[in-house]
Amino acid sequence: MAEDKEVTIYDIAKHLNLSAATVSRGLKGSSLINKNTRKKIQDAAKALGYRSNTFASNLRSKQSLTLGVLTPRLNSHFVSAALAGMEDVASKEGYRLIISQSLEEVEKEKLNAQNMFNNRVDGLLVSLAANTESLEHFEPFFNRRIPVVFFDRVANHPDSISVVIDNYTAAYNVTKHLIEQGCTRIMHLGGNLLRNVYSDRLRGFKDALKEHDLPLPAKFHQVSNLSSEAGTQAAEWILSLPPDKRPDAVFSANDTAAVFCMLRLKAAGIKIPEQIAFAGFNNDPISLVIEPNLTTVDYSGYNIGQTAAKNLINHLKGVIDIFMTDAISLRAELIVRASSMRKTSDVRREK
Amino acid sequence: MAEDKEVTIYDIAKHLNLSAATVSRGLKGSSLINKNTRKKIQDAAKALGYRSNTFASNLRSKQSLTLGVLTPRLNSHFVSAALAGMEDVASKEGYRLIISQSLEEVEKEKLNAQNMFNNRVDGLLVSLAANTESLEHFEPFFNRRIPVVFFDRVANHPDSISVVIDNYTAAYNVTKHLIEQGCTRIMHLGGNLLRNVYSDRLRGFKDALKEHDLPLPAKFHQVSNLSSEAGTQAAEWILSLPPDKRPDAVFSANDTAAVFCMLRLKAAGIKIPEQIAFAGFNNDPISLVIEPNLTTVDYSGYNIGQTAAKNLINHLKGVIDIFMTDAISLRAELIVRASSMRKTSDVRREK
Repeated sequence: MAEDKEVTIYDIAKHLNLSAATVSRGLKGSSLINKNTRKKIQDAAKALGYRSNTFASNLRSKQSLTLGVLTPRLNSHFVSAALAGMEDVASKEGYRLIISQSLEEVEKEKLNAQNMFNNRVDGLLVSLAANTESLEHFEPFFNRRIPVVFFDRVANHPDSISVVIDNYTAAYNVTKHLIEQGCTRIMHLGGNLLRNVYSDRLRGFKDALKEHDLPLPAKFHQVSNLSSEAGTQAAEWILSLPPDKRPDAVFSANDTAAVFCMLRLKAAGIKIPEQIAFAGFNNDPISLVIEPNLTTVDYSGYNIGQTAAKNLINHLKGVIDIFMTDAISLRAELIVRASSMRKTSDVRREK
Repeated sequence: MAEDKEVTIYDIAKHLNLSAATVSRGLKGSSLINKNTRKKIQDAAKALGYRSNTFASNLRSKQSLTLGVLTPRLNSHFVSAALAGMEDVASKEGYRLIISQSLEEVEKEKLNAQNMFNNRVDGLLVSLAANTESLEHFEPFFNRRIPVVFFDRVANHPDSISVVIDNYTAAYNVTKHLIEQGCTRIMHLGGNLLRNVYSDRLRGFKDALKEHDLPLPAKFHQVSNLSSEAGTQAAEWILSLPPDKRPDAVFSANDTAAVFCMLRLKAAGIKIPEQIAFAGFNNDPISLVIEPNLTTVDYSGYNIGQTAAKNLINHLKGVIDIFMTDAISLRAELIVRASSMRKTSDVRREK
């Protein structure tokens, strides 16, 4: 069938009665070919359905101009923002992005890494699955010096770099803010401690308590997947305590768990922030819909994605050597809203 | 440098003192080779950093096993759900997804389509930009019989198929529900009418009004980008009207505009649903956080993505011929919540 035959520069040359060399130069926009001829060549290429041979020439040059992206889930507010930032950079620089998701399972992450390797990606952008413990599945990349950039959920390896926010300081600042608001029994809803984002946030939380000589009562640090159901369950647990044993503040490692915990407590008549103050993390859209609006930490998934892709591509172009760098840390900002404002004076208000 | 030299089956053969043919069979897991030898070959391939030649063999077979995805924005709740569904199908079938976004601009969509064409994707999955009017930039695909599957924001073309929900009926049902709740002055917040999703929802809305002999007062259909700001502005406009000229219901073509319109009206003391009932579209997470919870239309971006990818891949495998099909319509369900329940009897409650 006609659609199976690939149009070559020889077909265009024959069609226009020109030499193949002239057609090749014309397609590349060479100034050696006069403008009208160039236009004629390009029009004919379009009409005949010619495809530039990016694919074959990539094979010859041993570059695929392709970056592989390993994510825990595509269906996430943070990941979609990061992908948008990566695409912005990659498309301007002539790179393609191939995407995959582990669904939080290290076994799928291993398969995805292997596929990316076999498909000869020029580099990898990786955010780890919840249960990844070893980096062995990235060894083929490290061994061949194929650059690996971890983002958000990162790991330390001398042959990679990480793009992160300072989760420790952000969590420390959230906790300090709650203490300044007069809270003394602060509960933390955290995530899987294998991942830096959650272990760093827990450390920041604990250090702020310690510095202010505040205790961490038993079960006031709970680990879950931070889903809406986990938030509701945390609220049920709080309601099961005698009123004087309840926390007077909850710091959740994401907004989803915070918001659904608030909704359940509000339904039970708990006043927020008067009885229990709340803070989350991520500045998701829901944090501006819940009433009172949720105090949270804002950082840009879009910027993290841009920065990760920019560094990877600059390394591939030889502009920088990312193997010299260990980590790049981006800004994260505490946004104080009504959910944690127990004092009317002395609070930082949102701009 | 060592990392630049590609390991071949000959290197593995030499390393193990076996023939290249044996190594090749061993790598493919052939039962002609005994199990221990197969394991030895596969271990050596791993240790030496051998990559299967997916890339080169794709070039020979004229298949890239790659699908191109054109989206309006990666940073969207719907698009990320659709991508997750596509990845689920594609990864099981051995296909890769290359992603791109138009940022709602037809010019970037044209560039993205051209890049996908030059990179020899086996097929395209497309959701159109806000301002796309002609399909000319897809002609190279149509001409070469490279299958194009439109999803969500679709267009009619004999050489493509569309995966959609029945937006007309969904909007008709939302409007009918509001009328059954006693609303007679219903306002519609709509999107760009170039896109089927918004023009079909408007038709469903208008037909339901007409069937119930209800008027559409001037400016009770407003077009915007349906952002949170657009929702707030719609509320300001409503508040600028004398109370007896205000709508008694608002049907928004997405949840974002509905929710931010509600927040602004609530702040001005308007009672929802008693004074103004509300319904949105999409069942985004915010619809369960706003109080009262928002009546909306639920449909699965994940299912739309899965269905689109499954049909594309089945066509490429010769299992089905998508050129025979015009459109595939998936289920959309009205979810009635407190934001529109003005009557306590006779309402369908959420399961």
